[in-house]
Amino acid sequence: MPRLLIKNAKALVGTFPAGVGRVSGAAMAQLPTIEDGWLMAEGGRITALGSMSSFPGITEWSDLQVIDAAGRYVLPGWCDPHTHTVFAAPREEEFVDKIKGLSYQEIAARGGGILNSARKLRAMSEDDLFTQAKDRLENMMRQGTVAVEIKSGYGLTLESEVKMLRVAKRLKESLPLQVKTTLLAAHALPPEFKEDRQAYIDLICTTLIPLVAGDGLADFVDVFCETDYFTVDEMERVLEAGAKYGLPGKVHVNQFTSIGGVQAAIKHIALSVDHLEVMEPTDIDALMGTNVMATLLPSCSFFLRIPYAPARQLIDRGLPVALASDHNPGSTPSGNLNLVLSLACIHLRMIPEEAITALTLNAAAAMQLESELGSLTVGKRASMIITNEVPSLAYLPYAFGTDHIDTVLIDGKPVRSGTALA
Amino acid sequence: MPRLLIKNAKALVGTFPAGVGRVSGAAMAQLPTIEDGWLMAEGGRITALGSMSSFPGITEWSDLQVIDAAGRYVLPGWCDPHTHTVFAAPREEEFVDKIKGLSYQEIAARGGGILNSARKLRAMSEDDLFTQAKDRLENMMRQGTVAVEIKSGYGLTLESEVKMLRVAKRLKESLPLQVKTTLLAAHALPPEFKEDRQAYIDLICTTLIPLVAGDGLADFVDVFCETDYFTVDEMERVLEAGAKYGLPGKVHVNQFTSIGGVQAAIKHIALSVDHLEVMEPTDIDALMGTNVMATLLPSCSFFLRIPYAPARQLIDRGLPVALASDHNPGSTPSGNLNLVLSLACIHLRMIPEEAITALTLNAAAAMQLESELGSLTVGKRASMIITNEVPSLAYLPYAFGTDHIDTVLIDGKPVRSGTALA
Repeated sequence: MPRLLIKNAKALVGTFPAGVGRVSGAAMAQLPTIEDGWLMAEGGRITALGSMSSFPGITEWSDLQVIDAAGRYVLPGWCDPHTHTVFAAPREEEFVDKIKGLSYQEIAARGGGILNSARKLRAMSEDDLFTQAKDRLENMMRQGTVAVEIKSGYGLTLESEVKMLRVAKRLKESLPLQVKTTLLAAHALPPEFKEDRQAYIDLICTTLIPLVAGDGLADFVDVFCETDYFTVDEMERVLEAGAKYGLPGKVHVNQFTSIGGVQAAIKHIALSVDHLEVMEPTDIDALMGTNVMATLLPSCSFFLRIPYAPARQLIDRGLPVALASDHNPGSTPSGNLNLVLSLACIHLRMIPEEAITALTLNAAAAMQLESELGSLTVGKRASMIITNEVPSLAYLPYAFGTDHIDTVLIDGKPVRSGTALA
Repeated sequence: MPRLLIKNAKALVGTFPAGVGRVSGAAMAQLPTIEDGWLMAEGGRITALGSMSSFPGITEWSDLQVIDAAGRYVLPGWCDPHTHTVFAAPREEEFVDKIKGLSYQEIAARGGGILNSARKLRAMSEDDLFTQAKDRLENMMRQGTVAVEIKSGYGLTLESEVKMLRVAKRLKESLPLQVKTTLLAAHALPPEFKEDRQAYIDLICTTLIPLVAGDGLADFVDVFCETDYFTVDEMERVLEAGAKYGLPGKVHVNQFTSIGGVQAAIKHIALSVDHLEVMEPTDIDALMGTNVMATLLPSCSFFLRIPYAPARQLIDRGLPVALASDHNPGSTPSGNLNLVLSLACIHLRMIPEEAITALTLNAAAAMQLESELGSLTVGKRASMIITNEVPSLAYLPYAFGTDHIDTVLIDGKPVRSGTALA
């Protein structure tokens, strides 16, 4: 693997010291940056970096790729700690039905919603699921995503949940980006268990979790804890079973209603609480002093026209915030984290530095990758975005809907090559 | 110029009969489409089209470029009838100030707003303005835009308004897309006229309008008719002077307040009323039975977090609606009409066919280009979008924030070449 030198960067952004695993509150706006910087990588890892004024020079030029990044920012690649990227089919027909005024109930009656995705996924081969998801992930990598969490949750049977996680594992082995996987069997109650919820939770806790933990198919467990989906008690049972098998919780809570999911997730030492569009003061109070990451999904609010999560309150109270795409065919048919950056600034009222921290270091932490990714730090993976020539860092979210990326590197190798590499 | 054949298109979309200049109300959803289609172009114009089942075959193959569009949609290129694409500098620092909670007044006190743009534009050379705007327009063409209206309005002196329009004229001569230009001297009151508004309106009506009309520098006149900007009476004076010199009105009305701008624009037979975020029932009533196009700018609502225009009401009342980007450095730093398509469906509640009609035929009509562009019709310019392989037309707005375009042709020549051309 060749060595890599990036020189003359307008700035190296997110040069956190080694050992800083996440950033909370006001510190999120203090994004460490080296103006006019250089960075070296070897064996896919960052080996050194600094300011051009103290550039030590190169003595060994063989097998060295040099990138002149004059006028360009170098950022850690985006991390996406909440996605449902393995699915069988888009659901644009439901999108049109909703515009035409059909209610959620009417769409469900027509066979829509999560159960629509489940029906299609159960019928699709692993190969087809893999090919489709690979295409989506390649598209996301070109947009700067270097790590992704992928959930099951459209199988809703033992066989199909395991099938989804096997597809995710194959994606992990086939693609250069980092992949973490989450068992979300408790995404919706499968029709087969309509009369016996308890039996489905039993299946998850006593069969599925031991199985996927034993086979190394999942890193985390998740539950859609929400009115009309799964109760707080049901989530607690799944989190307990996950903990027993070494799978921390990353849970869907407070998307539509505040029913105690945040507090229960904290009690079970979840890694992250995700969504949080509907937060009561007591929910925010509960997060104070905990290590639970608040992972916000503004593309979902955008697409569903539901409230945006109270990012400003969370940060102003001193809490850490991460951002993710929520890429899925029902509520968020987009995996573009550059648009999430714009949405975070425009609609979550995060300043650009806060949003970048939330999409890099904190997003890595929300999937236990903070020692590998999320900052330009010696020893971490050389997975980076090199921007076009732009006037400022704030220009990235400001000029929304425009592609500002020139080059994306994963482990030092380009997955998208722009003019900076020419 | 070579002849062009597109064959096997999944569908030719927007194949309106010749002579249909705009579409209103329920008809906007009836987008004429030829499944499995072919299209011929010669000399930059569409010469024939139809269904593959009745493809007449090719007898003369010399100098013929053949595009196999299997699995791809062919659409008329987007038309953008409301932009401020000639400007001196982005204003991302104001964007950050706003996130930090500064009021509009505080930002203005720091030298922000339209007058910020005016100060910078007055100081910039025509060459620099041209180079910057050319870059922006080239980016917009790659996103499928084949015609654009460009307004003055950051000059606010005779010299600088004329300078902007000269830059727009040079862009028209230098780039393949169609350009229409609008004198928007009444965009904000220049500080020099703070004590004498009347004198500035006089300058516009008696000097600027005759000058730009005489030199062929403008096709239309515009006024920002709004509380704290220009009054209805002032707009009426400008529209009258414009009419005298053959320049129809395309006016900013009802963005923040309803003060009678719609009614006055109708009285003066304006071509379009633009923005319309704040519409009283009487404003909508006034539009009934007129020929005035309602041009909506959802990217502006998105970025400013102001209400979206009542597109649903307008269409349901039988009115025609066009869409535009409003590309400008203050309220809409994005010229991407694909995102406008998504915003129109998600936030204006337009169904995909309505939004496509609004971005093509009706958008062309909103800048008097409906005989040249806006549909796949024999005799019109061969300015078209060829999509990636996508499952349906509704997928284009649904899968938001993702680039779905493979190839863009303007007058039969590629300005963006994808795999369909390979």
